[in-house]
Amino acid sequence: MRIEPEDRFASALRLAGVDRGALLLTSPEDVRWCSGFTGSNGWLLLQEKRATLLTDGRYVDQAANEVSSIVEVLECRTTRAMVDALSAVAPEDPIAVQEGHLTVAMWRTISAAVGERLTAANSELSNLRRSKSVTEIDKIRRAAEIADAALASSIELFRPGTTERALRDALESRMRELGADGPSYDTIVASGPNNSALPHHRPTDRGFEDGDTVVVDVGALVEGHHSDMTRTFFIGSPSDEVSEWYRILHDAQATATALVAPGRAVKDIDTACRRVLATAGLEEWFTHGLGHGVGLQIHENPFINASSDAVLRPGDVVTIEPGLYRGGFAGMRIEDLILVTDDSHEILTSSPKDPICPR
Amino acid sequence: MRIEPEDRFASALRLAGVDRGALLLTSPEDVRWCSGFTGSNGWLLLQEKRATLLTDGRYVDQAANEVSSIVEVLECRTTRAMVDALSAVAPEDPIAVQEGHLTVAMWRTISAAVGERLTAANSELSNLRRSKSVTEIDKIRRAAEIADAALASSIELFRPGTTERALRDALESRMRELGADGPSYDTIVASGPNNSALPHHRPTDRGFEDGDTVVVDVGALVEGHHSDMTRTFFIGSPSDEVSEWYRILHDAQATATALVAPGRAVKDIDTACRRVLATAGLEEWFTHGLGHGVGLQIHENPFINASSDAVLRPGDVVTIEPGLYRGGFAGMRIEDLILVTDDSHEILTSSPKDPICPR
Repeated sequence: MRIEPEDRFASALRLAGVDRGALLLTSPEDVRWCSGFTGSNGWLLLQEKRATLLTDGRYVDQAANEVSSIVEVLECRTTRAMVDALSAVAPEDPIAVQEGHLTVAMWRTISAAVGERLTAANSELSNLRRSKSVTEIDKIRRAAEIADAALASSIELFRPGTTERALRDALESRMRELGADGPSYDTIVASGPNNSALPHHRPTDRGFEDGDTVVVDVGALVEGHHSDMTRTFFIGSPSDEVSEWYRILHDAQATATALVAPGRAVKDIDTACRRVLATAGLEEWFTHGLGHGVGLQIHENPFINASSDAVLRPGDVVTIEPGLYRGGFAGMRIEDLILVTDDSHEILTSSPKDPICPR
Repeated sequence: MRIEPEDRFASALRLAGVDRGALLLTSPEDVRWCSGFTGSNGWLLLQEKRATLLTDGRYVDQAANEVSSIVEVLECRTTRAMVDALSAVAPEDPIAVQEGHLTVAMWRTISAAVGERLTAANSELSNLRRSKSVTEIDKIRRAAEIADAALASSIELFRPGTTERALRDALESRMRELGADGPSYDTIVASGPNNSALPHHRPTDRGFEDGDTVVVDVGALVEGHHSDMTRTFFIGSPSDEVSEWYRILHDAQATATALVAPGRAVKDIDTACRRVLATAGLEEWFTHGLGHGVGLQIHENPFINASSDAVLRPGDVVTIEPGLYRGGFAGMRIEDLILVTDDSHEILTSSPKDPICPR
C-alpha cells in the first residue's frame, strides 16, 4: 500500500484538531514523516489545500529532491525569514504549533509576528507516527536484524580482557558493514559490578573479568528508522545470586512481553512486570520505565510506565526492557523490540537470552 | 587553573540576571558544563547557596559519581516528580528558566506548579560556555588532531571507485582507533557534480569518478567536546572552472580567517568573506552562514553571519566555513576550527588544503 503525502497531511491536521486554520510542524521527525524531508532544519506548514516547507540554504536542493511536488519549498536564510514566510503563507489563519517541541523563545518570536492567531495543536498529534506502515516496519525489522547479526558475529569478544570500548567499536563497525546507516544511539557496553549497574553507562577501557555481567544495549539505524535491544551476558560463571536475579528478570520480561497486544493499557504491562520482581523482593532495583515506542525517534510514543494512560494499537513498535541495578553487585537488563499486530505481537529482536558465554 | 563548580554556578546566575531567586538549567550542555553531569535527562537548580540536580533512576548513581559533593542529587522518576521537586526545593523564589531550550509544554507544566514565580533568564546566559578553559581547549584540540590524523591516514581512498560510505566508515573507524569517543556529527562525504552541491549530503554508495569534487566534513568527539573541519578534494584533474572556483573559495576562507580576533564583530568577517566571492561573481552560490561556535555542542554561540551582533572574545572556538554549491556542476567547502586567542587566533585544524589527490 502506497501512502500518499496528502493522507499524512490529513492525519496530522485531524489529530492536531485543525479544521480551517494552519498547522506548523517543527519536530524534525514529524516533518520527515509527513513530507519526506530529512534535513535538520525545516518547518512544514500544512493548510487545507497547501503544504509549504520552510528551510535554509543548506537544504533547499535536498528538499526539492525529497519532497512531493505538492509541497512548495521556500528558502529562508534566517529564523527571522522563516517567521516572515510563515506570516506571508498564512496571513489570516489561526496557526497551531507543537507545544511539546517548540521552545518558549521561538513561541514568543512567532507570537510577536502573528499575535493571537497562535494556538496549540491538540496533544493527540503526538501519536501521529504511532501506527507504523508496512514500509516503516520493514525498515525497523531490518535494523533489528542487523543488530542481531552484529551481536552474533561479536560473540567471541565476550571473554576476559575485552574492553567495553572494543566491543562497542566492533558492534558499530559490524552494523555499518551489514548495511546500517549507523548505530541507532550510543551503543552501551557496561561490565562488572559497578559499570553494569549504571543503566546508561558509556563504554570505557575497562576489560571484562571472570564473574562480570556485561550489559549490551545496541540498535541499528536504517533509513532513519531505529532498532533497540539489550542483552546481558556473564563472563565465566556467575554467582548463584546473580544467576537467580537473572532468572527472575527473564521471567519478568517474558511476563510483560506476553501482555503486549492491541487494546492493552500500558500501565497494566508495567504493573505485571513489577509484580514479578516484587514477589522476589527485587522491585527496588528496577529504577526506570518499562519501555517506549521506537520509530523515526529512538524514544517516542507510546511510553510504557505506571503513569501513562496509553493503550496499545496495531502498528505500535515498543520496547519491553526491565533491568536490575545494584552498584557493587551487578546490573542486568533484557530488552526486546516488539511490534503490536492486529491480534497479538511479534518480537522483532531475536538474539538468544542465554547469558552464558561460549568457553 | 582549576575551575571550581561554585565559580560556574556564579557565572550562570550572573549571566542569567538572577540575584536572589533560583535558576533552572535544562539544556544538557549547560547542566554538564556547570555540574559535570553527563546524562541525557537532568535539571540543575541553582540558588544562592544551594545546587540541586534532579534526574531519573537511570542516572542517579552516575550523577553521584560525576557531580561535586556540593550538588545535591534528587531522584525523580517522572516529569511530574521533577516539577514537584522543583517546587519543594524553591518554594518561594522566583525561578528563571532557559526559554531558548524549554518547550512551551514544559513551561506550561512548570508554570501550573509555581505560578507567576516563573521568569525568563536573561538571554546573555546563552553565552555561558563561550570562553573556553584551558582544559576544554585541550579536549577540542585533541578532537581536531584526531580528525586530522584520520583524514591523513585515509588519503589513499581518494581515488575512483571508492564509495562515499566506504570513506565515511574508514574515517569514523580511524577516529575511534585514535581515541575519539565517536564522530562529532554525522560525517559528510559528498562527491560529484550533484552530491557535493548538497551542503549536508548523507553518504551513499556512489563511487568517486574522475573529475569529481569530494567534500569531506569530519570531526571527532573527545569527552563531550567536538571538533569540526571540512576539506574538498579533486579526483583526477578538475576542470579549469572548478579550479578557479576553488582558488576563489580558498581566498575567501583565508580572508575571513585572517580577521578572527578578539573584539571583531562577526558580521564584519561575514561581509569580508562574501565580498571576495562577490568580486568573482560567485556570491549567489554561498547559501549558508559562515560559521558557528563549537564546544560541548557542535553548533553553539557565537554564530557567524550577517544578522548577528556578536563580537569575538578570547576563548571563543569558531568555524570559518564558506562553501560554493551549484547542482550539476560542483560543490566545495573549506572549514577550519579556530581558537580566538588574547590578541589574535590559532587554527586548530591542520589538514592541508591542497585539493589535488595523490596519483
